[in-house]
Amino acid sequence: MQPLRSSQRLAQRMLSCSQGRISAYRSQYRQYTQLSNSPLDNPAAKASAIEGAASDTPSAQETSPSNGATHKVMTIRRPLGARKAYYMLTGGVRIGTRLFEPVLLRDACTCSMCVDPSSTQKNFQTTDIPPNIDIKSQKTLSNGDVRIKWKNDLPGFGADHVSVFSGEFLHPSSDYTSVDIPKPLLKARAWNAEMIKEDIHFLNYEDYMASDETFNRALSELVKNGILIVQGVPNSEQSVEDVAGRFGNIRDTFYGKTWDVRSVPDATNVAYTSRYLGLHMDLLYMANPPGFQLLHCLKNSAQGGSSLFADALFAARGLSPEDIHTLSQATIAYQYKNAGEHYYYQHPVIESAKRSTFGLPSILNINYSPPFQAPYLKHSAQAVSLLKRNSALRNFAERVENPANVFEYKMQEGDCVIFNNRRLLHGRTAFSAVGGERWLKGTYVDSDVVESRVRVFRERFGTEKLQRDERDKSEEVSSTA
Amino acid sequence: MQPLRSSQRLAQRMLSCSQGRISAYRSQYRQYTQLSNSPLDNPAAKASAIEGAASDTPSAQETSPSNGATHKVMTIRRPLGARKAYYMLTGGVRIGTRLFEPVLLRDACTCSMCVDPSSTQKNFQTTDIPPNIDIKSQKTLSNGDVRIKWKNDLPGFGADHVSVFSGEFLHPSSDYTSVDIPKPLLKARAWNAEMIKEDIHFLNYEDYMASDETFNRALSELVKNGILIVQGVPNSEQSVEDVAGRFGNIRDTFYGKTWDVRSVPDATNVAYTSRYLGLHMDLLYMANPPGFQLLHCLKNSAQGGSSLFADALFAARGLSPEDIHTLSQATIAYQYKNAGEHYYYQHPVIESAKRSTFGLPSILNINYSPPFQAPYLKHSAQAVSLLKRNSALRNFAERVENPANVFEYKMQEGDCVIFNNRRLLHGRTAFSAVGGERWLKGTYVDSDVVESRVRVFRERFGTEKLQRDERDKSEEVSSTA
Repeated sequence: MQPLRSSQRLAQRMLSCSQGRISAYRSQYRQYTQLSNSPLDNPAAKASAIEGAASDTPSAQETSPSNGATHKVMTIRRPLGARKAYYMLTGGVRIGTRLFEPVLLRDACTCSMCVDPSSTQKNFQTTDIPPNIDIKSQKTLSNGDVRIKWKNDLPGFGADHVSVFSGEFLHPSSDYTSVDIPKPLLKARAWNAEMIKEDIHFLNYEDYMASDETFNRALSELVKNGILIVQGVPNSEQSVEDVAGRFGNIRDTFYGKTWDVRSVPDATNVAYTSRYLGLHMDLLYMANPPGFQLLHCLKNSAQGGSSLFADALFAARGLSPEDIHTLSQATIAYQYKNAGEHYYYQHPVIESAKRSTFGLPSILNINYSPPFQAPYLKHSAQAVSLLKRNSALRNFAERVENPANVFEYKMQEGDCVIFNNRRLLHGRTAFSAVGGERWLKGTYVDSDVVESRVRVFRERFGTEKLQRDERDKSEEVSSTA
Repeated sequence: MQPLRSSQRLAQRMLSCSQGRISAYRSQYRQYTQLSNSPLDNPAAKASAIEGAASDTPSAQETSPSNGATHKVMTIRRPLGARKAYYMLTGGVRIGTRLFEPVLLRDACTCSMCVDPSSTQKNFQTTDIPPNIDIKSQKTLSNGDVRIKWKNDLPGFGADHVSVFSGEFLHPSSDYTSVDIPKPLLKARAWNAEMIKEDIHFLNYEDYMASDETFNRALSELVKNGILIVQGVPNSEQSVEDVAGRFGNIRDTFYGKTWDVRSVPDATNVAYTSRYLGLHMDLLYMANPPGFQLLHCLKNSAQGGSSLFADALFAARGLSPEDIHTLSQATIAYQYKNAGEHYYYQHPVIESAKRSTFGLPSILNINYSPPFQAPYLKHSAQAVSLLKRNSALRNFAERVENPANVFEYKMQEGDCVIFNNRRLLHGRTAFSAVGGERWLKGTYVDSDVVESRVRVFRERFGTEKLQRDERDKSEEVSSTA
């Protein structure tokens, strides 16, 4: 059982790792190809010749920054009185009438020497860009693109290396990325019970599975309302996996890929009447709770047993800035210590992006699940005072649980509800299984998987903008409720 | 295809959600039982009578805080000049010679009324604890436990409700939780190449699978070094799942539950010689990159093709406090837009806990994977200036890639390496498949899963403390390398 130390076994197989080897490896960067189907690769990758491989030039020497850019510090007032110094560019390289930082531009080059066309991997490292890199020449093409040649380019990139940037990329409003930066809840329409009763969408199972337009609608609904219901789902234990499979791979947990919420009728045993189940989120005792949950109703002939949903985003948006700040700082611990597992994690109640957008706090996720709370830590282990934290938490809980904000819906056989587990709380009213049966089958999908699908479908179908009047309405209700 | 609005379908099945209903639900909290095998439940849960259910008292009225605790603000100097106000308790309820905050104590009660014994769910909400709760009586028992009865207890908890706290729980050094707060990298021994060559552990497959002592050793090695090698793994495509299965469920991704890194010999095609693969971490374009990676070597008769590993924690610990701060603030975006997927996420290079421990930054994860970097965002979208960020990143990259810090090991058939993907970078030297073959099969396991297993095994086998001399050695090398 005693494991052998490496020195006893390594001697004959360890290759010496001499100084300078890594640099030698690095000079091969722009040549390497990756052919396997590992996560490092495009599964469909094929070997491809890389342009310009025969024209390497000697490495440029790194020098201290001297590219002509000068910076001045500007202090910007931020919400809640915090101040932060930002650097404002007042120099740099000039393209047309505007100024750019050469290092950022060089880093963004996506030519086939810089980014492998088949694997989409980057063939150089940001840290290898010489700080004194500069533009040697530039030319605006007829289509508005700008072609740039470099002075003091990266080691291994010769005079033939040319970067081309689109007019869109260079536009003042561009932040150098085409990606919708993850801020899913910013695009959400926070709802109370009245609003969601009017707006919840029901999609037909056949359409959802077969039509990309319908599935795109489902994605939009999940971004906006964080909940939708697929109807007419076949009465099979496999179905919930099929519905989830539209997004991508399922999130497996120690509960299994899918799991059952089931009661069996037995009038003689009071235990088989299931009571009210308080509003909660699932699996907050993990660092990465599942982003989305699916519940497929296989049977619901019981009396009672309605599903409850509450939008924590609606509750959070109506809080005072002070309470939002407190709940962003204060963490609550969740724990599951049972049945051979011991999960434990502390989350802030409100997870915000570092920077706010348009003055609104950029809420990314909300974490609140009272039944799974671990004991509070002693106040000295917390960044926020107990009184402040409890007061903010009470204001938040009152809004979450306010009946005017709780959507109640009795699931029918064939319904599959899909909802955001990092935004909505869910629960269930009491029910009696006398003469009836209630059986839901559930599964999870990670936010990462759903967000990838959202991006791919947006690129295909275009972004669905929120109606301006809907957004206004949402903000109005949030601020007064 | 056009989905029907809720109002068209909901009318007949929507139950009215009247004011006050939630309060009524809530009064049932301490009575509800949960019988299914859903994630809300202990899979082995059985219905159980709950003590004291017949002795409810009317709700206490909430009043303003008046439990005798007074607070004064103390300003503590923190690293990097930041200051934060903490509240120091100078009042509260007295137990023995010490003072406690009644709300925290009440929240921590784990009696069978407060926490369901079978599901381990909490039966009340923190926000329902009246701020004026106080201790009615206390008694120290012969075993050192303290038994407390409450004044102004939670609604629904009668005079028979008694809380018992152990002497250990009430000890001044207790932070009210028995859990090892997630700070995995704090217990790590950061290594350079020389250190890991001496200390990497090889475990026998049969022992690893069959002996809990050996598996406990594996867990300790993963906490300490972040890497180990299991030897003698059967030459089957199923084996890597078996090795991973010791931790719990596998993390499925769009690459599949397991995936192949494979080259096929074909001397006529230069593409089938795989080149150097730069140091990287996997799947940083997800919000939740997998915590651990397994690679099982099925074939390695190729020339070259050694595996490379570098400990980013070693690199980070040797940085200046300013660089650590910069890399905790600066985010780098990662992207995978290929083959019908579009993943994108921004991570800080160094993910730290909010509070430092013993003056050391509490590094939780490190995120650095140059080949998958998305274009830098424009500087105005970043909290840290470009010059500062690039300088810190260059210092970090130089340390990560320093050959003295890179461990090189040629995997043998039957080896399965397990390593921390949020701490170590990995790569591969070039190899020629002429006359040989290289085939690794890989999979992932989430940090959550591994950490649960670590807690369960620690409770069983006790904590393995780092040898004091090892820790000293590690810190010494870190600070001078």
